[in-house]
Amino acid sequence: MQTYLSLPDALARHTDAVERELRSIVPDDGSPLYTALRYHMGWCDQSGKAVNGTAGKRFRPVLCLMTCASVGGEPDSAMPAAVALELVHNFSLIHDDIQDRDTERHHMPTVWVVWGESQALSTGNAMYALASGSLLKLAEQVVSPDRIAQASASLTRSSLEMMEGQYLDLEFEKRTEVNTDDYLDMIARKTGALIACTMEMGVLIGAGDTATASVFALAGRHLGHLFQVRDDILGVWGEEAATGKPTGSDIRRKKKTYLVVQAMQKATGAAAITLKRIYAKQDPSDQDIRQVMDVMESTRARQEAEALAVRLADRALESIQPAELSARSMRDFEELVSFLLNRDH
Amino acid sequence: MQTYLSLPDALARHTDAVERELRSIVPDDGSPLYTALRYHMGWCDQSGKAVNGTAGKRFRPVLCLMTCASVGGEPDSAMPAAVALELVHNFSLIHDDIQDRDTERHHMPTVWVVWGESQALSTGNAMYALASGSLLKLAEQVVSPDRIAQASASLTRSSLEMMEGQYLDLEFEKRTEVNTDDYLDMIARKTGALIACTMEMGVLIGAGDTATASVFALAGRHLGHLFQVRDDILGVWGEEAATGKPTGSDIRRKKKTYLVVQAMQKATGAAAITLKRIYAKQDPSDQDIRQVMDVMESTRARQEAEALAVRLADRALESIQPAELSARSMRDFEELVSFLLNRDH
Repeated sequence: MQTYLSLPDALARHTDAVERELRSIVPDDGSPLYTALRYHMGWCDQSGKAVNGTAGKRFRPVLCLMTCASVGGEPDSAMPAAVALELVHNFSLIHDDIQDRDTERHHMPTVWVVWGESQALSTGNAMYALASGSLLKLAEQVVSPDRIAQASASLTRSSLEMMEGQYLDLEFEKRTEVNTDDYLDMIARKTGALIACTMEMGVLIGAGDTATASVFALAGRHLGHLFQVRDDILGVWGEEAATGKPTGSDIRRKKKTYLVVQAMQKATGAAAITLKRIYAKQDPSDQDIRQVMDVMESTRARQEAEALAVRLADRALESIQPAELSARSMRDFEELVSFLLNRDH
Repeated sequence: MQTYLSLPDALARHTDAVERELRSIVPDDGSPLYTALRYHMGWCDQSGKAVNGTAGKRFRPVLCLMTCASVGGEPDSAMPAAVALELVHNFSLIHDDIQDRDTERHHMPTVWVVWGESQALSTGNAMYALASGSLLKLAEQVVSPDRIAQASASLTRSSLEMMEGQYLDLEFEKRTEVNTDDYLDMIARKTGALIACTMEMGVLIGAGDTATASVFALAGRHLGHLFQVRDDILGVWGEEAATGKPTGSDIRRKKKTYLVVQAMQKATGAAAITLKRIYAKQDPSDQDIRQVMDVMESTRARQEAEALAVRLADRALESIQPAELSARSMRDFEELVSFLLNRDH
């Protein structure tokens, strides 16, 4: 088995190529629909004028390419799948922003704020259809029809799981009680499924066998879990300069993250009353947010989240064992896990 | 070339099988997400209890199966594609209802009315993902990987066109002036693309050559156009008992249909002022609706629409010529065109 291309190497090597391929998939015909898509991707302003905006991390496509390389595949052959994953991810962001009433992303007004809800809905849909279109370009690579069919099935299944997760997430916002198991099941679908698919497709296209693909899919599921728990922590204590979101933003939006779920389960007495009061409010104040952060510390919800992240990292490392990676590849995989565990944005 | 299975035959023969296959694709796990999907399809009430609701016409899947048969294919082999088309169509209905603020469909509250906009958005998305999943089941039929890839490409392309059409449709609602060409381009995408795809996939899976598939795709495009213009006429003058919508409903919703576009172009003097006044209103009254209907008659917009429908029917009949259908198949195709031209629901 070949070397598992490390994340910094992979980012340095592939980000530009991923960006070029993404740009080639989204039509640039000046129509309002595609202008909205290109705006969301950070390539133009609201009028369609090219800008150097802040793009996303492109974490999923790079992870797909490096996974492909790790099983001896040619990373370029996985490019259509890598790009499809990023488009599915961005489809979900455009719709999530409508559903969560989020008004900013990467310091820019979200698509629904600029073009209205209805048009943002269609814009998101078009992003999803473009993802399917990108995946079909695998046929232009030296990828067998069977592998393409497996990759398509994987992307379809994980997209559906992601939607199920999003449905649950919204349902949780209306409930007062959500237990930890419910929460973990929800993020396994909402975030875990697509990252599992990212690694599974990388292996399938890299010409690994389906058994190895399943091993990577499971490891990816744990990585996705880890990714989300870290996101939850950053959503409260992340520095605005790094995350682009103000400290405590998840509390302001009253998102039912792992931290809130934990704090609500553990809080007693005055702390419990404080939490209930603030989460019943329409608009929590800055002081409310500081109070919730204090409760998250005093109930050890923060420590619990950090401990969970460590457990998920361990699970990812354990679950990759059957793939029998080389020592070098294993070190690179460990580095990836460590990055996800410690990232600050 | 074999006989082109006629529409009444096809409906009688295939509707039950289509319904069974549709039911097998949409999970029945009691979760709110899939309950919402099954409710939309007319299979259960809001609580998930089975009902004999009014389902859609299932026109697209039956057309796909009969097209497959017309080129000598086994209709059953096209079932996964037929069902995928119906699911894509229903995905668009769920989202359109949110965008158009439509509160009823088949005499039942729409999904967004029952479950809220955000959840209806995810419900629609899941319907689209299930469509992709259904199409992949073609691999279980005796359909070659190449044909499956072509069918996937066709469905993806036409879904994207459909979304472009929906985007334009919403844009037109905000504009005061929309000319006939703009309107025809919009419906070619919004309705024509998926019906073109319906016939193209039927031919591809029925083992016809790609040249024949293109001929049917073009004919399907005209049929889709015809379908929509007839819909526009029924949206104003259709009988509530047949269409399930009150007479004049498109006027009440101020939809920019062919009839309005025509009337606005042709109306002068008092009629023009009346139209402008009513289309600027928030809620047109019953009297307003009758006035608009009168203008549509006096400007000959209704006659224009009926003449356009006839021209589109002729174009469909002309465009199918290169497929060199047998006399019997041609008769059946003529019957299909005649049905679309004259249908009352």
